[in-house]
Amino acid sequence: MVKDGTAGFYNKDLFSQHIGIELLASSTGEARARMEIKDHHLNSMGTVHGAALFALADAVFAVASNSHGNIAMAINAHISFMQAAREGVLIATGREISLGPKLASYKIDITAEQGALIATFQGMVYRKKETHW
Amino acid sequence: MVKDGTAGFYNKDLFSQHIGIELLASSTGEARARMEIKDHHLNSMGTVHGAALFALADAVFAVASNSHGNIAMAINAHISFMQAAREGVLIATGREISLGPKLASYKIDITAEQGALIATFQGMVYRKKETHW
Amino acid sequence: MVKDGTAGFYNKDLFSQHIGIELLASSTGEARARMEIKDHHLNSMGTVHGAALFALADAVFAVASNSHGNIAMAINAHISFMQAAREGVLIATGREISLGPKLASYKIDITAEQGALIATFQGMVYRKKETHW
Amino acid sequence: MVKDGTAGFYNKDLFSQHIGIELLASSTGEARARMEIKDHHLNSMGTVHGAALFALADAVFAVASNSHGNIAMAINAHISFMQAAREGVLIATGREISLGPKLASYKIDITAEQGALIATFQGMVYRKKETHW
Repeated sequence: MVKDGTAGFYNKDLFSQHIGIELLASSTGEARARMEIKDHHLNSMGTVHGAALFALADAVFAVASNSHGNIAMAINAHISFMQAAREGVLIATGREISLGPKLASYKIDITAEQGALIATFQGMVYRKKETHW
Repeated sequence: MVKDGTAGFYNKDLFSQHIGIELLASSTGEARARMEIKDHHLNSMGTVHGAALFALADAVFAVASNSHGNIAMAINAHISFMQAAREGVLIATGREISLGPKLASYKIDITAEQGALIATFQGMVYRKKETHW
Repeated sequence: MVKDGTAGFYNKDLFSQHIGIELLASSTGEARARMEIKDHHLNSMGTVHGAALFALADAVFAVASNSHGNIAMAINAHISFMQAAREGVLIATGREISLGPKLASYKIDITAEQGALIATFQGMVYRKKETHW
Repeated sequence: MVKDGTAGFYNKDLFSQHIGIELLASSTGEARARMEIKDHHLNSMGTVHGAALFALADAVFAVASNSHGNIAMAINAHISFMQAAREGVLIATGREISLGPKLASYKIDITAEQGALIATFQGMVYRKKETHW
């Protein structure tokens, strides 16, 4: 289930849609998305591009961090690549690991269908007083 | 000028082409690319998506790190977002900051046309013995 | 319980001992340590110094990553600071999040006695063929 | 030369003094420090501990980020280790790479006396309205 407000927020994310990322679920501080691997996700070696993995994690990061209603702006992110992915579906699952009045942090794991860990992502946002809805 | 071998390598990078990133120049350990901001680069707030900025830096990272001829695989990357970008052209410029037999590191800066720093990226690769060309 | 071999490895870590870090437990791919906050851990604001928190996490990172017997050398690390700590005991708990023949990644959480998350650390090592014992 | 106000700030940094870090210079947004390698800086392999390198960079980060007078609190930091160091003197040189009203970023390089790059550090702070002096 996608949290109220979040669906409208995600529908305006043109980049994530250009990549072909589908939001599966969201709740306060959490989100999950999927990406079915297509040719346009591949790098020069024929495996999923690091930036496509980043995009998948970042879509979850944006939804989870904006789920409180306050505008949350990414200030930095770190991604580690564990294993190459070539085909099938990738799932990104994110959760909040800290929430302060101004700053919050999120951890997103990307796994293959069989559960293999493909990449881990950690990102931090600056939270504005302005709200989305 | 784009280094011999690198042009062929970059032409196989389907993801970067899907995003609309153009390789401008490369030499050993270095590369430069541009991205003209289009609607499909935008996030829910109408500014350039963090993952689009990551993709631009990552394209430069891949070319610079593979420019020695050895296959270089990204193991992790860190990006910091300095300022929002909305329109115009973004330029990513990367250089090698360390080169060992197995590991190498790269720093990529993304700037707007007027020179404002939009994001900084640092990435590390694992270098295989196998070569591209 | 501290894994065989690991105790000897940790005893040679002069820096961690200078800081006052005590190894509590280790097993393959995992470790836990504690640091009782003393004046020499404080920064200019009177809270625990970011580098003291890093040192605590890094001690756990070193033990966990060297627990397989192969020499593991840190190649990078990322730390996020969630909350200031002022007194009492800090605990760092680390686990392996990926293990390849050459590279492995570890995640370490630092918590206060009441369980509050003080900092999160993620680090990657390069694994040599040479072994410790 | 050490900027006015900064000397007093650094003198209260008990952790950096416990490690043996000496502040060499500071100006607005910049700082430089040195650490003469002693036994208590070494890890289990007999080279300078990653956390000792982090401490050296972090001391410079704290001084540079607090040099504007506003209280600056570290929110995260990333360090990459390029080369092992065993003896002699290490120098850390830091500069501001972005400065906003709430957030600022700093890049610190650690070099050996001969100029070899030992580690690079990037850190971000949250800037409070309260000032130090």
